[in-house]
Amino acid sequence: MTQAALKPTTSPLQQRAVAHFTDLQNRICEAFESLDEDSQFICTPWDKEKTDTLQGSGEMRLMRGKVFEKVGVNFSEVYGEFSDKFAGEIPGTTADDRSFWASGLSLVAHMANPKAPAVHMNIRHIVTAEKAWFGGGADLTPTFAFDEDTAMFHNQLKSACDSYNKDAYTEYKKWCDEYFFLPHRNETRGVGGIFFDYLEKTPEETFAFVQAVGEAFLKSYSSIIERRKDMPFTEEDKKTQLLKRGRYVEFNLLQDRGTRFGLMTGGNTEAILMSLPPEAHW
Amino acid sequence: MTQAALKPTTSPLQQRAVAHFTDLQNRICEAFESLDEDSQFICTPWDKEKTDTLQGSGEMRLMRGKVFEKVGVNFSEVYGEFSDKFAGEIPGTTADDRSFWASGLSLVAHMANPKAPAVHMNIRHIVTAEKAWFGGGADLTPTFAFDEDTAMFHNQLKSACDSYNKDAYTEYKKWCDEYFFLPHRNETRGVGGIFFDYLEKTPEETFAFVQAVGEAFLKSYSSIIERRKDMPFTEEDKKTQLLKRGRYVEFNLLQDRGTRFGLMTGGNTEAILMSLPPEAHW
Repeated sequence: MTQAALKPTTSPLQQRAVAHFTDLQNRICEAFESLDEDSQFICTPWDKEKTDTLQGSGEMRLMRGKVFEKVGVNFSEVYGEFSDKFAGEIPGTTADDRSFWASGLSLVAHMANPKAPAVHMNIRHIVTAEKAWFGGGADLTPTFAFDEDTAMFHNQLKSACDSYNKDAYTEYKKWCDEYFFLPHRNETRGVGGIFFDYLEKTPEETFAFVQAVGEAFLKSYSSIIERRKDMPFTEEDKKTQLLKRGRYVEFNLLQDRGTRFGLMTGGNTEAILMSLPPEAHW
Repeated sequence: MTQAALKPTTSPLQQRAVAHFTDLQNRICEAFESLDEDSQFICTPWDKEKTDTLQGSGEMRLMRGKVFEKVGVNFSEVYGEFSDKFAGEIPGTTADDRSFWASGLSLVAHMANPKAPAVHMNIRHIVTAEKAWFGGGADLTPTFAFDEDTAMFHNQLKSACDSYNKDAYTEYKKWCDEYFFLPHRNETRGVGGIFFDYLEKTPEETFAFVQAVGEAFLKSYSSIIERRKDMPFTEEDKKTQLLKRGRYVEFNLLQDRGTRFGLMTGGNTEAILMSLPPEAHW
């Protein structure tokens, strides 16, 4: 295999996806900074030619603030070839062509106030030899669940789904509940959200949907944090949150496909594990 | 499959192994309590008939003390049938008979003083349809490595190995270095120790070796902790330790076969994840 084979030949849709991911990254970081006075994201661009089979670049943005105890908002664009072991699991990969291109925006926020929920959001576009698709999702993980927050988060995501197709919300909510589940604890990660993958038909509509998911996330989560960030809490509440975060770590390292995908394809470890909480207890 | 098929028919060696594991559990807990004044292990016996394919019992012992910030010393004896997915990975399992019996002692200690190293020790006896073997290991994970501690730990384990066979230490040390490695971080978990598995020949000699490993662990680790438990340390040292513990969590949940074996065979989650540190940072 020559290095040339790894050069990305990106379609207009791939270019528009990349432009959207980076624009949304900017807007999310601005919104979060405005919720967390005197705190700022630290940006760490990275560029890797780690192996013969993976190249790419990205930008990690990390804020350790007073409201956002730790939040990572990462953009990446990588391309290369899947290893033998992994290729069989990925749609559109053939025996002759195991190449892939992947770009996405990935976000996890762990909040200082235990009354403020943690959140995850991810949108991505992946292209293999024979297929191209979008995937993503968003889910809310409160330590102390407020019905008002759960309803707002789900309602916003439902609106994004409804504009895409009438069964989307039901289907993607179910997928989320099944995905963000810890079998060894027999418990869900949080109060759910939506999860979707392998959306390869109607790329224009799907891209519009992916954009709507990002907007729904930003609007609802900002509003929830505005409401919760200054709520009073006890030392006991904080301890409860730190134990809940232990479960978050267990999910990410034992179950999460994104983490596994990233680490197995030789991705940027620091960026991938930025999802881990600043502090967790067991 | 009938429940009767799951009844353990234990050999004299299996019974002696169980007796040894529980005796060593007692002696380790006594030794650790004597190093940690006013702190005591909390014993939680468990007995499970969780599924049609797994039964068993055990005793978790957990101490959250002043010296031992969190230490778990767990005994278990489980038996049942491997799932389709797992059976193929286990020696001596046939298409007709996927039954297994497993008993062992498993220990992880996370110390309050960052100058005192964390440690893991595990010894086990496993029986499947066509094979019976011993496995185990011990490895030391200091945040701040002292040559004196590393040498003592290795020397004691080497003595146990030398009495078994002349190549054992070299081989099992190498196995340990390869096993306790975080590929995504390109770093070792700690300063190593020994790791061995599938020892099925000369069962009497092997059982004697497994016992010697337990004694070597108890003697060297008690001595190391005696030396380190009251050493002065800074807040910065503690922070460094909490980040090091994050790596410990990553290893256990991403890499560790024992954790995976336990969770995949429907084992006791609380007992299996007792290895996780009381607090970790990222």
